Amino acid sequence: MTNFFLRTLREDPADAEVASHKLLVRAGYIRRQAPGVFAWLPLGLRVKAKIEQIVREEMAAAGAHEVHFPALLPREPYEVTGRWTEYGDALFRLQDRKGADYLLAPTHEEAFTLLVKDLYSSYKDLPLTIFQIQDKYRDEARPRAGLLRGREFTMKDAYSFDASDAGLDASYQAQRDAYERIFARLGMEYVIVKADAGAMGGSKSEEFLHPTPVGEDTFVRSAGGYAANVEAFTTVVPEAVPFDGLPEPRILPSPNTRTIATLVDLANAEYPRPDRPWTAADTLKNVVLALTHLDGTRELVVVGIPGDREIDDKRVEVAFPGTEIEPATEADFAANPGLVKGYIGPWSPAGAVLGEESTTGIRYLLDPRVVDGTEWITGANVDEQHVFGLVAGRDFTADGTAEAANVVPGDPAPDGSGPVELARGMEIGHVFQLGRKYADALGLKVLDENGKLVTVTMGSYGIGVTRILAAIAEDHHDDKGLVWPEAVAPFDVHVLATGKDQAAFDAAETIVAALEDARYDVLFDDRPKLSPGVKFADAELLGVPKIVIAGRGVADGVVEVWDRASGERTQVPIDGVVSALAG
Amino acid sequence: MTNFFLRTLREDPADAEVASHKLLVRAGYIRRQAPGVFAWLPLGLRVKAKIEQIVREEMAAAGAHEVHFPALLPREPYEVTGRWTEYGDALFRLQDRKGADYLLAPTHEEAFTLLVKDLYSSYKDLPLTIFQIQDKYRDEARPRAGLLRGREFTMKDAYSFDASDAGLDASYQAQRDAYERIFARLGMEYVIVKADAGAMGGSKSEEFLHPTPVGEDTFVRSAGGYAANVEAFTTVVPEAVPFDGLPEPRILPSPNTRTIATLVDLANAEYPRPDRPWTAADTLKNVVLALTHLDGTRELVVVGIPGDREIDDKRVEVAFPGTEIEPATEADFAANPGLVKGYIGPWSPAGAVLGEESTTGIRYLLDPRVVDGTEWITGANVDEQHVFGLVAGRDFTADGTAEAANVVPGDPAPDGSGPVELARGMEIGHVFQLGRKYADALGLKVLDENGKLVTVTMGSYGIGVTRILAAIAEDHHDDKGLVWPEAVAPFDVHVLATGKDQAAFDAAETIVAALEDARYDVLFDDRPKLSPGVKFADAELLGVPKIVIAGRGVADGVVEVWDRASGERTQVPIDGVVSALAG
Repeated sequence: MTNFFLRTLREDPADAEVASHKLLVRAGYIRRQAPGVFAWLPLGLRVKAKIEQIVREEMAAAGAHEVHFPALLPREPYEVTGRWTEYGDALFRLQDRKGADYLLAPTHEEAFTLLVKDLYSSYKDLPLTIFQIQDKYRDEARPRAGLLRGREFTMKDAYSFDASDAGLDASYQAQRDAYERIFARLGMEYVIVKADAGAMGGSKSEEFLHPTPVGEDTFVRSAGGYAANVEAFTTVVPEAVPFDGLPEPRILPSPNTRTIATLVDLANAEYPRPDRPWTAADTLKNVVLALTHLDGTRELVVVGIPGDREIDDKRVEVAFPGTEIEPATEADFAANPGLVKGYIGPWSPAGAVLGEESTTGIRYLLDPRVVDGTEWITGANVDEQHVFGLVAGRDFTADGTAEAANVVPGDPAPDGSGPVELARGMEIGHVFQLGRKYADALGLKVLDENGKLVTVTMGSYGIGVTRILAAIAEDHHDDKGLVWPEAVAPFDVHVLATGKDQAAFDAAETIVAALEDARYDVLFDDRPKLSPGVKFADAELLGVPKIVIAGRGVADGVVEVWDRASGERTQVPIDGVVSALAG
Repeated sequence: MTNFFLRTLREDPADAEVASHKLLVRAGYIRRQAPGVFAWLPLGLRVKAKIEQIVREEMAAAGAHEVHFPALLPREPYEVTGRWTEYGDALFRLQDRKGADYLLAPTHEEAFTLLVKDLYSSYKDLPLTIFQIQDKYRDEARPRAGLLRGREFTMKDAYSFDASDAGLDASYQAQRDAYERIFARLGMEYVIVKADAGAMGGSKSEEFLHPTPVGEDTFVRSAGGYAANVEAFTTVVPEAVPFDGLPEPRILPSPNTRTIATLVDLANAEYPRPDRPWTAADTLKNVVLALTHLDGTRELVVVGIPGDREIDDKRVEVAFPGTEIEPATEADFAANPGLVKGYIGPWSPAGAVLGEESTTGIRYLLDPRVVDGTEWITGANVDEQHVFGLVAGRDFTADGTAEAANVVPGDPAPDGSGPVELARGMEIGHVFQLGRKYADALGLKVLDENGKLVTVTMGSYGIGVTRILAAIAEDHHDDKGLVWPEAVAPFDVHVLATGKDQAAFDAAETIVAALEDARYDVLFDDRPKLSPGVKFADAELLGVPKIVIAGRGVADGVVEVWDRASGERTQVPIDGVVSALAG
């Protein structure tokens, strides 16, 4: 450490919110260069290399071949697939000296597709899975949490190419299995959740989420083993209820009840029902959304959801793929006087306002729970009036259903495995059946057994190397510093020579040599004139799993072996360190 | 090879000029993505990784620590050092979503300087040398020759930090020694040439040039061991000649002699001298250059060189650092009627035109060979008149000297080691004493032994990894394909199973297993239904150093071991392949 390039810091960086960010900077693993852009210092680079090596080995075991693409790619292929524009501000774009457009690739579907098109032409060449470990770029609006959401980051991205759907299934499974092995070797807890595949044009998609409080994703899981992204959760549809004997709807005055809470209060005060109080779940909330389609046209839709739920931003994006969604504006309401703000409902005393028989021309989509025969309190489309006992399927209809409402703990899992809970997770891997979207767009076809040209079907598979590193740091730390698991630790052993006695330094040097002979990676704190306290504090901050302290005990022929995770310290003879660590 | 991602091509790529480019593409090592931008296929990636590993090991042996910087860096530090503008069109510039300026780094002096400033503060922290192996970007005007001059390329760049000049000398020497070891391990011929350091603000600079006909650099070397870049070559100045007895100059008519050739012809025809004919070396050519300085001002200078030499573009750039240089235009001549185009000289019948006593205000710089007492034929600054026997120092003077003339084979080496020759070379490494330029600009200071702040002195050291790969391919090929040296070959052994006999395939598989057990990297051509000829051709194209052929001989228990470089084929028993290769 006298020569090693390292400086530990006593203060947390000012911009750091999460432990991994604070500690990786303080312990000298990374250093900020720009928002969301970091330099890797020697310790950080060693941990990163270990993760990459594990990924590489498991990719090889899965039969994937390593290639390496440039980060700088020409615009044209991304134009063909539409991603040049779809990526919006998140894409770093630039021009060369001749004015030709380039981008810094956020992922490489286009480039891999073109490479295979360039070189392969027959079903006999397939299946093929190729991967790279590469620095990627995304101009995040709000880079945050250090490496957890950066603008430059390292990913392993793999792409599979098959002539048949069955082939894609097998390639997908091979990558999925490799991911399970990778996370097992990294000692990382993970949940495989169904992810929405629709917007990307693919057919099947799963995310590997690492449960952690600092995760940006919310996911849904049941004790019975169901797991899904909130976007991919599908509502269990209750059975329809017969209409027989249901009373007719009643229009009732309801001043100042533009919110569900005020409506429920009024209902219980003015129109109580005998058996139990009204709740928000008895109301039908009709939310007006303005969709901007890819072609620029603007469309209003009304989504009806039970009043005890909210529109979920991510689920509503999936419900209306390829559109930008915002709440309807005052101008929208002004242009549609048929919708009475705060009192919107599918039906009014004058007849149908929304649904199949509507004359407004506005699409009306209902939460799947609003099945035929269910009764609702909802707006009467007349100012300060609601209708009570409006029956779905009898008094109003819709143009379809939409999975736009949030998922609530206790909702039944769609696979019947019981009620779900919500948890925070971080996406650490993603496996994705792209299908033929990219091959179609870029013309990747091969000859099949019968000499007929068929479009290749593809998968894409990503693992965030730098994000995984941060997640491990996040999971493995205490108030003193990092506590690396062995598989990814920058060094196996950290040897400290302490005190002023040259014998301790000599003993430490002997131990370092013996450990290196035994193929351990050793960090040797040989810095003179530093107090043991400073060296201990640095060792705890750096987080190497095993620490050997050569100090006063050397006079008696012993050193201490200190386990960073458990804190346990054991006295060991100087010549017994290697066997003590092996044991 | 049934599963390996590889496609060899029969045709040379249309845009390839040099053998390395053609063969690396045809043999499936690299694939073009954009002008000067390539993807690395599995074979290429393996060779690249081997070169990187050798570099990494020798950097570690030299005490350098590995870090890794982003390619995407903010503008500010490059603005401070001036490189944001100085790099001109060669710099890839871009903006993020907030309009902040970024660049793709061509080299990382600024970032490394700031990192050390950020973390270190005392002379005790030094010396320090840190390096990275990283993908760099330069928007070359004419990317060419495949990897030899690309717009994205991989470099090892190291930077040293010292508190004293002696420290810098030692750090510089350590890197220089490491480079010698690296090139020795790679089996690459190299010449260490003095390079010009002036323009970059440094004090000492040497290039490692690899002699090759496809090199872009011309360098100068003597049999006695002198070597320099043409820019860095310094002219041996002849001794001055006494004026005594030299005749007075004569003004003579010389119509239609605007070129040196016509002037010499006329001189020999009209004004012959008795002992020997006039040659171009007897004439003094005065070239008018227009310099545009960094502040935008334009200045004319006249450079006088012997008529048998030309202005050398690279040497003249070094002679006038920090300026853009072009020949004077008609407008320049029109604005300076004192200079008579085609007949320019430092002296005219009316008196001094250029030099110390000139009234034109135009700087006049002479080639160092134009010493006092030398006699010249030169323009008389009168249309169609030259002056013969004009004596330097007696009849005219200059404002200084300029090393602007080209170097010619036979010129004496400045170190007295004999006449030089000119050779073509490719820059494969560069070691450079930057001195305090970057530390000054960015404020990198440390406390010295006396507690005084001193500015750190730096070195920068680059090796072009991808260029080295191409240079090795260029040197090691024949008309059949690549012929890799062992140190960087993508595989150690290429095993071919040929024919239709299953026994050959089984024997090949046994050999592959035995070789892998003996820790050889093996490529196994197990492709069925291909003729031996196709497999042989592919093996020759790929260029793995040792090829083992399991074919008809397997029935007799033998296979052939084929040395790719020598072409020698030896029969070896199936179970004797490992020992035959080891021997």
